[in-house]
Amino acid sequence: MRKGQQTRAAIIDAALELAARAGLEGLTIGALAERMHMSKSGVFAHFGAREELQIAVLEAYEARFIDAILKPALREPRGLPRLLAIMNRWLDRVVIEAAMGCIWVSGASEYDDRPGPVRDELVSRIDGWQRELGRAIAQAMQAGHLRHEADIDDLVFGIYGVMLALHQDARLMRNPDALPRAHRALGRLLRQFSVAGDPMAEAALAAFDDARPAGSARLAGPPAGPLAIAGAGASASFRPLDTV
Amino acid sequence: MRKGQQTRAAIIDAALELAARAGLEGLTIGALAERMHMSKSGVFAHFGAREELQIAVLEAYEARFIDAILKPALREPRGLPRLLAIMNRWLDRVVIEAAMGCIWVSGASEYDDRPGPVRDELVSRIDGWQRELGRAIAQAMQAGHLRHEADIDDLVFGIYGVMLALHQDARLMRNPDALPRAHRALGRLLRQFSVAGDPMAEAALAAFDDARPAGSARLAGPPAGPLAIAGAGASASFRPLDTV
Repeated sequence: MRKGQQTRAAIIDAALELAARAGLEGLTIGALAERMHMSKSGVFAHFGAREELQIAVLEAYEARFIDAILKPALREPRGLPRLLAIMNRWLDRVVIEAAMGCIWVSGASEYDDRPGPVRDELVSRIDGWQRELGRAIAQAMQAGHLRHEADIDDLVFGIYGVMLALHQDARLMRNPDALPRAHRALGRLLRQFSVAGDPMAEAALAAFDDARPAGSARLAGPPAGPLAIAGAGASASFRPLDTV
Repeated sequence: MRKGQQTRAAIIDAALELAARAGLEGLTIGALAERMHMSKSGVFAHFGAREELQIAVLEAYEARFIDAILKPALREPRGLPRLLAIMNRWLDRVVIEAAMGCIWVSGASEYDDRPGPVRDELVSRIDGWQRELGRAIAQAMQAGHLRHEADIDDLVFGIYGVMLALHQDARLMRNPDALPRAHRALGRLLRQFSVAGDPMAEAALAAFDDARPAGSARLAGPPAGPLAIAGAGASASFRPLDTV
């Protein structure tokens, strides 16, 4: 890489970290310049405008997401082995993001009612990842591991729901059981759509179940924060109505 | 109600609407005073500080949530009929919130790394609702509609994931199929845990399936916004890697 490219890559590294904590809307040229010990005009030389920087960060986030989750899974055979490898790596990733923050999740709240190029980019990246998941599911159907009559988008929706619930349960709720719960939910969901009796499908699902014994994989939660786990006393303010 | 209570209730109404759009962090005494045609000190007279107002809004949101979703469902018999009535009303509610915004979802991103009383309140309210769901699930087990060996919290987690995915798919992604997809996902999830052969359970699940013919219930999406539905061309920037 040339010097200019190196600097640009270093700025994006710092911006990714900043955006994970403060959101894409918290990503300002000023905060980034301070973090990089650069002048604002030095940062501006690489990114003409804040919007351009935000879009570059979304691009870089996707590239890392693909490198961490999809690329290694491509070494597994097409079908459930590959799809479950994606699931395992994605679970690992959400656990890290439960501590660090995730710009796709925070971006969803920041941009859901804010039209513009950053929103378009975010929607397009999430949509792209969902299509990639859909491709892995379609291959698992072709391999005879998942039932042909299943609706691919229904399965993508189901998987996405588990990952969103894991993120919230781990990051906001600080629930120490969030990861084993998400793992079981994915196993059940995929088993529900799988072809009973296919040896490769059943072996892949059994290996997935065994990969994380229930309850053993605990979450650390966000690093700082003096908060306790949401526990027995936490909902004292909620008056149960259900005396009927 | 006395005059003071009426004014307080009117301020909270306006604050709920403002927070749905701008988030709890976007809720300022200044913006609220402007909306209410009151002076800032007039608003301050009812809420000593912004934090007190934010907490009052979370309290009011929960009360409406319970009124809209839980209370009417208590008219249904305990067990799957009641649990599925909760699901139907919750789906309706998420569709409205896909247009209006939801302070539990936006609050999750705003406060997940921001300790303090507002975060504690948010966590406690969500936790309380999840316990209420758990209670309805436990009753469905006692009624012989759901299998006793099922993990109640696993089911709560699964239901929560569907609702989070619906909110994101409808509000951010503007997917017109989000509601029928969520509806099918809930039906599958609860059927997976149900006791086969119980007539009341099977009737309740069949009625749930029939309540919304797949694909007929379309989402309007957020009211303003010139954005198109995320469509075929949206993920052009996503380069499929899966040529292996």
